[in-house]
Amino acid sequence: MSLIKVLEILAILVGAFSGFIEARRKRMDVVGIFTIAFITAFGGGTLRDILLDKRPLFWVTHQEYAILIFVLALVSAPAIRTLRRVISERLIIVADALGLGLFSIVGVSQALAAGMPIFIASMMGVITGIFGGILRDVVCNEIPMVLRDGRPYAICSFGGCWMYLLMQKVGIPPDFSLWASAMAISLARILTWHRGVRLD
Amino acid sequence: MSLIKVLEILAILVGAFSGFIEARRKRMDVVGIFTIAFITAFGGGTLRDILLDKRPLFWVTHQEYAILIFVLALVSAPAIRTLRRVISERLIIVADALGLGLFSIVGVSQALAAGMPIFIASMMGVITGIFGGILRDVVCNEIPMVLRDGRPYAICSFGGCWMYLLMQKVGIPPDFSLWASAMAISLARILTWHRGVRLD
Amino acid sequence: MSLIKVLEILAILVGAFSGFIEARRKRMDVVGIFTIAFITAFGGGTLRDILLDKRPLFWVTHQEYAILIFVLALVSAPAIRTLRRVISERLIIVADALGLGLFSIVGVSQALAAGMPIFIASMMGVITGIFGGILRDVVCNEIPMVLRDGRPYAICSFGGCWMYLLMQKVGIPPDFSLWASAMAISLARILTWHRGVRLD
Repeated sequence: MSLIKVLEILAILVGAFSGFIEARRKRMDVVGIFTIAFITAFGGGTLRDILLDKRPLFWVTHQEYAILIFVLALVSAPAIRTLRRVISERLIIVADALGLGLFSIVGVSQALAAGMPIFIASMMGVITGIFGGILRDVVCNEIPMVLRDGRPYAICSFGGCWMYLLMQKVGIPPDFSLWASAMAISLARILTWHRGVRLD
Repeated sequence: MSLIKVLEILAILVGAFSGFIEARRKRMDVVGIFTIAFITAFGGGTLRDILLDKRPLFWVTHQEYAILIFVLALVSAPAIRTLRRVISERLIIVADALGLGLFSIVGVSQALAAGMPIFIASMMGVITGIFGGILRDVVCNEIPMVLRDGRPYAICSFGGCWMYLLMQKVGIPPDFSLWASAMAISLARILTWHRGVRLD
Repeated sequence: MSLIKVLEILAILVGAFSGFIEARRKRMDVVGIFTIAFITAFGGGTLRDILLDKRPLFWVTHQEYAILIFVLALVSAPAIRTLRRVISERLIIVADALGLGLFSIVGVSQALAAGMPIFIASMMGVITGIFGGILRDVVCNEIPMVLRDGRPYAICSFGGCWMYLLMQKVGIPPDFSLWASAMAISLARILTWHRGVRLD
């Protein structure tokens, strides 16, 4: 199993988890919880694949991804009310930051592999990283958090994507650059959030 | 004219109708009414075709579908204020349930024909069935009804899609399985709604 | 550089500008401003390219478009608070009307070049013209202005697209029909708005 795949599965799990929480907060039913989890987990990657015209989509070739989310929704839906009391906001931010890093770097590396020019590849990384969350918020009828809370979020993704592109240019082994830049994004997000850095 | 086509036209009419009602309730203008009807009627099938990478889209090959909605919007826009008083909520639920059944089964059968694995095909059926309504509600600035009202909706579609897949596996003639499972979805939706079954 | 290209760049600039204003009004941060500008400027054309299955997307082949918006967002974000006081509503309406005309006609001519049937081509023109604004409003959590304010908007686009299609049929030189019908759309929008014409 390639490294990209491991990253992608991790990112999907984290995305689905943040979808669960949000859907529960909006008092959605079981189907709503599954749908929002699915949208958050697969939204970014699906848009990336559609923009790159890559078919079959990654969750079509990997039926197991969708089945995994499905089973998780079934299992966790009843437990999630209790779960919410245990889960602190801090944990959600950390999980979400991990997802942001993983998705972004998977996105930029796949766009590069599809022969996109460099600036576009970095944009694809950011889109893959943030679009799931935007979709989740739009369907939940809120202005996407990414766009309004004044905290560095997309900017962390953007910086990390360029870090990856530079490391590739310089000739650093892909495996290392993948992990390093994904980590850099997650850390940047967690640290700036913790310090209360603001953008606007 | 194949059976799938008949089902599709019926589903489009029903979808457009529910779009008309919703757009009118939001006091949209004529263009808004047409757009919402169009989105509700074609949203699910368009997403399905994009995900399956099937081109030209079904409403491009069948120009007459779009023209039909267009003429209906022109004709019915002035009448719809009066219409609303005549149309009971019950009628809307029934029309919508028919659309759900028809769209879902058209979706699952086309995904199967496109060589999708079984679980993905069932997901495509659900997506085709519910996505038009989700888009309608998102554009009308509401949390999609499907995801929050706690009534069985997507679940009926999911069950019916699996019923169709099983019937195909067992070797029942396609024409019969198409109608039977579409009917099953619509009935399941109408009955659970009538009985007030809740999910959450 | 072809005429279509000039029109497209103009339309993108105008779209991005209306995105800037809207994002600032919603008190979004720098990233939000860039994202909304990007969505408004490229949304319509991207949907058109996806529906026509045209790849690479126009903003992938023309990296410079995306970079242009990026630089503009960086430069104008700090200035935009001051800008807003200078910019009257009238100016926004005019800029937006120009964008509507330009995008619609680029859309219809490209759909025609892709071999779409005539009615579908006119729909593609309208979609390209109005979809960026719809996306902008949906992400900003509002009912799209196009669909609810009762002023002629999509109808101007629709009329202009048919004017273009007719001029092509009659054999008028493309360069002239392009400009003439784009201008007709913008003028129709500005005049009906100025006169307070209502639809519903």
